[in-house]
Amino acid sequence: MAAAIALSRRGRPASAPNPNVGCILVQPAPAKAGGRVVARGWTQPGGRPHAEAMALAAAGDAARGATAYVSLEPCAHASARGPACSDLLIAAGIARAVIAARDPDPRTDGAGIARLRAAGVEVVEELLPAEARAAMAPWWTRHAWGRPFVTLKLATSLDGCIAMADGSSRWITGERARAHAHLERAMHQAILVGRGTLDADAPGLDVRLPGLEDRSPAKWLLTRGKAPAGWTAISSPEAIDGVDSLLVEGGAGAAAAFLAADRVDRLLLYRAPMLIGGGRAALGDIGLADLAEAHGRWRLADSRLLGSDQLDVYERVRRD
Amino acid sequence: MAAAIALSRRGRPASAPNPNVGCILVQPAPAKAGGRVVARGWTQPGGRPHAEAMALAAAGDAARGATAYVSLEPCAHASARGPACSDLLIAAGIARAVIAARDPDPRTDGAGIARLRAAGVEVVEELLPAEARAAMAPWWTRHAWGRPFVTLKLATSLDGCIAMADGSSRWITGERARAHAHLERAMHQAILVGRGTLDADAPGLDVRLPGLEDRSPAKWLLTRGKAPAGWTAISSPEAIDGVDSLLVEGGAGAAAAFLAADRVDRLLLYRAPMLIGGGRAALGDIGLADLAEAHGRWRLADSRLLGSDQLDVYERVRRD
Ligand SMILES: NC(=O)c1ccc[n+]([C@@H]2O[C@H](COP(=O)([O-])OP(=O)(O)OC[C@H]3O[C@@H](n4cnc5c(N)ncnc54)[C@H](OP(=O)(O)O)[C@@H]3O)[C@@H](O)[C@H]2O)c1
Ligand SMILES: NC(=O)c1ccc[n+]([C@@H]2O[C@H](COP(=O)([O-])OP(=O)(O)OC[C@H]3O[C@@H](n4cnc5c(N)ncnc54)[C@H](OP(=O)(O)O)[C@@H]3O)[C@@H](O)[C@H]2O)c1
Repeated sequence: MAAAIALSRRGRPASAPNPNVGCILVQPAPAKAGGRVVARGWTQPGGRPHAEAMALAAAGDAARGATAYVSLEPCAHASARGPACSDLLIAAGIARAVIAARDPDPRTDGAGIARLRAAGVEVVEELLPAEARAAMAPWWTRHAWGRPFVTLKLATSLDGCIAMADGSSRWITGERARAHAHLERAMHQAILVGRGTLDADAPGLDVRLPGLEDRSPAKWLLTRGKAPAGWTAISSPEAIDGVDSLLVEGGAGAAAAFLAADRVDRLLLYRAPMLIGGGRAALGDIGLADLAEAHGRWRLADSRLLGSDQLDVYERVRRD
Repeated sequence: MAAAIALSRRGRPASAPNPNVGCILVQPAPAKAGGRVVARGWTQPGGRPHAEAMALAAAGDAARGATAYVSLEPCAHASARGPACSDLLIAAGIARAVIAARDPDPRTDGAGIARLRAAGVEVVEELLPAEARAAMAPWWTRHAWGRPFVTLKLATSLDGCIAMADGSSRWITGERARAHAHLERAMHQAILVGRGTLDADAPGLDVRLPGLEDRSPAKWLLTRGKAPAGWTAISSPEAIDGVDSLLVEGGAGAAAAFLAADRVDRLLLYRAPMLIGGGRAALGDIGLADLAEAHGRWRLADSRLLGSDQLDVYERVRRD
């Protein structure tokens, strides 16, 4: 299942508005010696084919009697763009389905599992559901909260500056950190900066990584005014819509606006081993009234070295 | 040798002005099956007894034929406070000495090793010298540069603030990080804050850890004015003297003054998983003219979690 979940990430962000799902078909070995992978699939750009359909097409007859590991419950609803995956799995003759998480879409929500069971397929549920949901965070957030999943990126010095006092910020972080940030761009449907950053840096916001140049996301500008050609004007953090995933790249005013509106789900903090001193702060006012309020909101999810820079990933702790 | 070096750290900071040394006496096993530790020693408060003298006293006759692992070359100079350690080791009948680093003190500097060899003791040199020097960094810095080894502590939010805009900073970091910071206090001979911090927080600067309360270091105040009773006034970072190790605990002005004077050797960065936004910056102006200059000065030496806070330790990269 961990492999199916890893596979599901390949679908991001192109599968939107459909969930990015991963599927692996495994033929059980004659002895107990583990199985043999016969095919793999993940949700394709635009959301079709679904992961299961892709894996079944690749497997052909080899799907008969196999176990399907799927990161999300197979859908129960046929559409003009294809049949329901639960029907496809049954028709292909799979023996067993292992499913990480139920599909909260009301058209499926248990109906896919019921249909598999009714056809005699053995179903195992809830294997690594938290991991599967994390891999589908953009789609899941939009489904649960009706808004995009927002990642805020900050590149700072050890003392938390995003630029020197005179505004110079090229370069604080090194090449490997910048390449990683470009990979993050490729994983998002839209990137946003504030008007101040557009005026100061005129950032391209494209994905400058070999083979991923065509992945460059939509460019959004946070402003109460108008946006220039090629950009979409966003009048407030609450107004964001139309995508599952948004990357906010600064500056201090735009970042603070998203935090003050509690619209940030994930922080990417790239930190270079340098001190600036008296530089520009990473964040403007976020409306914090009391230090005690600031505790318990962020949890370290990942930490790694990128060359001599450090990347820490924090996730918003939400109790609902 | 790694164990002898670890032992040497126990001498800090009380061994000053003498180097903190560690010594382990090992009797070789009859077969090749490793040895048996017969005694351990480290430099005692005030600098005497030396590590070797302590270990030899504990070993008694068991020192005969043993190997001595010592983190610094045994001294060759007798003093009113005791005989030379190289003579003591010879008189005790040790067979072999393994030494991490030579003693740069001109009264020894190879003379201890020469005396051991002349007496028929087998000597192995330069085993983990960098690690041994790091464990003796305060003494080594003072010896090599004629000034104390300075550690700068900063406790910040993820966005690099040391306080909210209104000055409140209790508490940003959690209990475990604060306990660690108190342990660091116990490892230093003096602690310094700037006049602004004294006025704002009236910090006690004592060591609030069970069993270490008596370790509370001297209190220094960075000010161009006078210091109140119980404090020593320090007129500039260049004026520090009289100790091997100094811990600078802020605020932004004092920290910046030490950095601008290039008097900081080590950074202790405690970072709490919170965002403040628009708060007080960790550092004032440090005289940086160009971003390019800021690169290559600091190297990550250690990184760990203390509860939900992160501690990163950086060391100044000096090429001499
Ligand atoms: N190191 C890094 O990671 C990094 C990244 C990006 C930028 N930077 C630096 O950051 C600096 C720019 O930061 P900044 O704070 O001046 O500007 P900014 O955050 O890029 O933009 C501020 C602008 O965003 C708009 N805005 C802010 N809050 C809003 C809200 N709630 N609703 C609608 N619009 C809102 C306003 O635009 P209007 O005035 O048009 O309404 C405001 O003037 C530059 O020096 C840049 O180099 C560094
Ligand atoms: N979170 C943390 O880790 C932490 C730690 C400490 C403090 N803080 C906060 O930091 C704030 C205080 O910071 P601050 O920047 O205002 O004050 P500060 O750094 O504590 O003290 C500044 C004073 O230091 C003296 N000084 C500075 N540079 C000097 C130099 N080169 N030579 C001689 N004297 C020099 C001057 O004193 P004179 O004017 O007397 O000459 C100056 O006014 C408080 O809000 C405090 O709560 C936070």
